[in-house]
Amino acid sequence: MEQFSYYTPTKVVFGKGAELKAGEMIRSYGFEKVLLHYGGGSIKRSGLYDKIVASLKENNIEFVELGGVEPNPKISLSRKAAQLCIDEGIEMILAVGGGSVLDSSKSAAAGAANHCDPWEFSSGKRVLEKSLPVGAVLTISAAGSEMSNSCVITNEDGWLKRGFGSDYNRPLFALMNPELTYTVSKYQTACGITDIMMHTLERYFCQNGDVALTDHLAEGLLRSVIDAGRIAIENPEDYEARATLMWASSLSHNGLTGCGRDYLMRCHQLEHELSGMYDRVAHGAGLAVIFPAWAKYVYRNEKALPRFSQYAVRVWGIEMDFEHPERTALAGIEATENYFRSIGMPVRLSELDIDDSGIEEMAEKCTFFGKRVLKDYIPLDKKEMIDIYRLAL
Amino acid sequence: MEQFSYYTPTKVVFGKGAELKAGEMIRSYGFEKVLLHYGGGSIKRSGLYDKIVASLKENNIEFVELGGVEPNPKISLSRKAAQLCIDEGIEMILAVGGGSVLDSSKSAAAGAANHCDPWEFSSGKRVLEKSLPVGAVLTISAAGSEMSNSCVITNEDGWLKRGFGSDYNRPLFALMNPELTYTVSKYQTACGITDIMMHTLERYFCQNGDVALTDHLAEGLLRSVIDAGRIAIENPEDYEARATLMWASSLSHNGLTGCGRDYLMRCHQLEHELSGMYDRVAHGAGLAVIFPAWAKYVYRNEKALPRFSQYAVRVWGIEMDFEHPERTALAGIEATENYFRSIGMPVRLSELDIDDSGIEEMAEKCTFFGKRVLKDYIPLDKKEMIDIYRLAL
Repeated sequence: MEQFSYYTPTKVVFGKGAELKAGEMIRSYGFEKVLLHYGGGSIKRSGLYDKIVASLKENNIEFVELGGVEPNPKISLSRKAAQLCIDEGIEMILAVGGGSVLDSSKSAAAGAANHCDPWEFSSGKRVLEKSLPVGAVLTISAAGSEMSNSCVITNEDGWLKRGFGSDYNRPLFALMNPELTYTVSKYQTACGITDIMMHTLERYFCQNGDVALTDHLAEGLLRSVIDAGRIAIENPEDYEARATLMWASSLSHNGLTGCGRDYLMRCHQLEHELSGMYDRVAHGAGLAVIFPAWAKYVYRNEKALPRFSQYAVRVWGIEMDFEHPERTALAGIEATENYFRSIGMPVRLSELDIDDSGIEEMAEKCTFFGKRVLKDYIPLDKKEMIDIYRLAL
Repeated sequence: MEQFSYYTPTKVVFGKGAELKAGEMIRSYGFEKVLLHYGGGSIKRSGLYDKIVASLKENNIEFVELGGVEPNPKISLSRKAAQLCIDEGIEMILAVGGGSVLDSSKSAAAGAANHCDPWEFSSGKRVLEKSLPVGAVLTISAAGSEMSNSCVITNEDGWLKRGFGSDYNRPLFALMNPELTYTVSKYQTACGITDIMMHTLERYFCQNGDVALTDHLAEGLLRSVIDAGRIAIENPEDYEARATLMWASSLSHNGLTGCGRDYLMRCHQLEHELSGMYDRVAHGAGLAVIFPAWAKYVYRNEKALPRFSQYAVRVWGIEMDFEHPERTALAGIEATENYFRSIGMPVRLSELDIDDSGIEEMAEKCTFFGKRVLKDYIPLDKKEMIDIYRLAL
């Protein structure tokens, strides 16, 4: 078990009606003026916006609002939000939405607290050392941003999608009512399921041994998500399935399923170039395409094979073939791919109408223009990245 | 899945050498004067005391010290520690030890911050609304107090052992180096294993359905602890086994394995009277005696039976007897009892030299002298408590 730090300070309130506590929660920290940050019109159509506003008013919380966060949130809006926070003397940001709204809020909070361009943190030019607090009312189970240290933003100038991690990115609180996710479309639900699974899978597939406890937690979480995912796709208003997905979204990316091992986000990195360059690609859908290609590329590696076999046996209930462990391992990868397909995800680039014309550029960007090699069972430089993107065609 | 709150703000630094960061960590929060609180002489013999003192001095942290915390920590020492904090203008307490030192520190912190007798919080007379921060250097894997909201103290006046929960009891940070537990005796290691398992089992055995995710996490944690426990008893210097026990001690009592379900600490309550009245009884050993008796008393209940069967199958790998689920359930209880025995725990009161003469008094105290009935599959009033204590003879 490798050394690790674990820090998950976010206060979670989980269950029916959790969103109604927004004003009271903000008040409990003594804040009096917030930025209400959200996405498109869905929170207005659903009535959630009115509930939140009522809760703020009841608790005498003054607020300024800024909507318009898009999927794959853009730095231009975060900059605008940061400036608004500075101009209006905002004390904290209340993010009402999913991962995109949360990440836009985190980026804005970083810019506002440091009076600088928030892209400086995304680009790695500057290290975050303070930020405004961010609270969340979660409306989609996917990114886990409600407890995570991560913030992923796309810069339209060059279509670069960049993430950065910092404990200052961890939200102050998260109000999580699974009912708010009933109206999430089947497609977005499936994208969320994929993203949740991938946050744990990226941590699971590493070279460190002796992490039995973390393994058991990861495998248990994956089995729960796989079952709940099937049910939620079939019946979007199944409370228990929605609750499992929502809680798993947080636990899968708050660090728990990676304690004591490396944290290699290579599928995420490969995917960021995909949805960064093809803005129509949802992050989860991109991951469903990248994972099978990546897995088939690396699973025969001697360090990878035992992990992939264990994954197949413990998560998918596949019988171990002790003579041919590579068959077991491959069966686990295929089971994952079949599952993604069964919930409506694409599993090839062609299903996203993407051909090989952009592969060279994606790989070039993913190496940060020749400045990095991704750590993995086999180090991934531009050549290997191109191979994986091609396998995904 | 029931509504729940989840709040685990403790910053964990885990791995070899973690204890050396004590001074730096305290300094990072801006504290300049601490109470160094510990137990007997073992931290001096092991050299840990010197390392901590050196780390404090390197970081210009002034400290006052108070040792002498006993197992089943006493309110008299917490009172003394609280007064010392007040008199010396202490800003935080650094607890170096296990659950007893942590609980003594939490109690003292509560008394010091509120300028009152800390027993007022234990007895339920007063609700904790602020406390001094407590940091931990953990030396034994057991109570999980390093991340938990709980504080259990014994009042020598009447030998009452009382716990109370509050988020203000949650430590600020915990430095966890598994190597520090190499010198913990086999018996104390086994007590710790039992305590860790019981923190999850108390949450596991409840009447709430639809908690698949929490179930999987709990079962995975239990399987890991059972395996690591066997290894640590055999080879006290097995790093991975010690690391698993240490991390499991925190996760088993920080709330994770109880999310979305009731939290019925009835075995703990029954045990508190046991080690409260018979001070020589270690808490873990008491639990190893109480659990099998309690389980055999309740498992046939229609709400309990499916849980006990699931436990037997998923944690102990027992084949499900679909015709006679009660046989499966009982086999799981017996497997637990055999495991406790195999690691050197007593499983009957007689092994602790306790006969039936104190049972009536323990039951009376456990009802808070007629003021409470413990919630369980079958509500536990004095009669039921006596039955369970008798089953444990």
